[in-house]
Amino acid sequence: MLILALDTATDKGSLALMEEDRLLGETSLESPGTYLTQVLPGVEALLTATGRRLEEVEVIGVSAGPGNFTGLRIGQATAKALAWARGLPLVPVPTMEVLAAQFPFQPHPLAVLLDAKRNEVFFGLYLCPGDRPRLVEGPERLPVAALPARLKPPLVLTGPGLNVYRQFLEEALPSDLLWAPPEMRHPRAGTLARLTGLRLAQGLTAPPAQLVPTYLRPAL
Amino acid sequence: MLILALDTATDKGSLALMEEDRLLGETSLESPGTYLTQVLPGVEALLTATGRRLEEVEVIGVSAGPGNFTGLRIGQATAKALAWARGLPLVPVPTMEVLAAQFPFQPHPLAVLLDAKRNEVFFGLYLCPGDRPRLVEGPERLPVAALPARLKPPLVLTGPGLNVYRQFLEEALPSDLLWAPPEMRHPRAGTLARLTGLRLAQGLTAPPAQLVPTYLRPAL
Repeated sequence: MLILALDTATDKGSLALMEEDRLLGETSLESPGTYLTQVLPGVEALLTATGRRLEEVEVIGVSAGPGNFTGLRIGQATAKALAWARGLPLVPVPTMEVLAAQFPFQPHPLAVLLDAKRNEVFFGLYLCPGDRPRLVEGPERLPVAALPARLKPPLVLTGPGLNVYRQFLEEALPSDLLWAPPEMRHPRAGTLARLTGLRLAQGLTAPPAQLVPTYLRPAL
Repeated sequence: MLILALDTATDKGSLALMEEDRLLGETSLESPGTYLTQVLPGVEALLTATGRRLEEVEVIGVSAGPGNFTGLRIGQATAKALAWARGLPLVPVPTMEVLAAQFPFQPHPLAVLLDAKRNEVFFGLYLCPGDRPRLVEGPERLPVAALPARLKPPLVLTGPGLNVYRQFLEEALPSDLLWAPPEMRHPRAGTLARLTGLRLAQGLTAPPAQLVPTYLRPAL
């Protein structure tokens, strides 16, 4: 089963092509402001680099949100169009679940923080004792100032919200919280691809024409 | 500090550009047999995609081995030449340490397995209770058949050796060992870049002209 996975929910975009247990290729890049000109050429470059053709792709996984409004719209527009045009199943995967799944076999709860702008974060608390995370709190939108009351050790902190609100969080949170290493704070499309396969096996697909992002905030 | 990291120690190559806490870009690809034609164009493409120039790179990190003979030679030849030509510090990072560092805050020991060909593996046992792994056994070269006696639960198994010797390992190992998710079994250059920064701060550089790969086997 050849899976194409596409994440543009944050300030970094990530694309991956996975076949069974093989991650054929993965590429992640900070977005210099516009995914619109990069996503489809990125998909094409990934297919070329791995020697595959779009016709061989069997399922498309996409970051469901919450996250960056414009990023989500462009990513989902692309994924929906590809799935619809090729008659492929489309699997939306919650963005925070992708971030939590990057910490398998983890004894501590995982607090995922995404930037929601205006001094707010999207927050979700996960447990990931195996290789698949389970949501135990949230997802919800919170003022950054409300986080210290919610985040008690032992806890692993992850997500791009850490970089955005680092200064406040470093000052306001207990010093014994575990900060994810910087390279693990953004969604990897390789992990999104794995979760896509698991969700597809459970029938958790979305009709390409109807899918809308999970915003957790009224769209502007 | 702009770090260029380069891993070609396994059947997948990975390149990354990291600046402080920001992973600017990362790309990983299964090698279709030859790194020689891909590494330098890959570095150039990564710089272009992130809007950086080679002149801005301040340190080069490279996978030290053990691993694939030809891959290591090509990767290190490239890293050494770039470091020497630009007068940059060169930081070799053990390949297995990169793999173990992908499991931060991990309560279980991590057994890293790399394919050593001829039914052998390169093996190292790490602990990673924080964000930086510590080697507790190995690195050593072992017959695959010797692994069941060495690998007792609870233990996380990782490394590309899992895919190469999957059938034997699935039959011969206890069923309650924890197998790393497939997308986490290869070295990520993003993690290599982070460890490069940590090692540079400790002065753990290598003279570009003298560095040779850690083979753990007499070179052919």
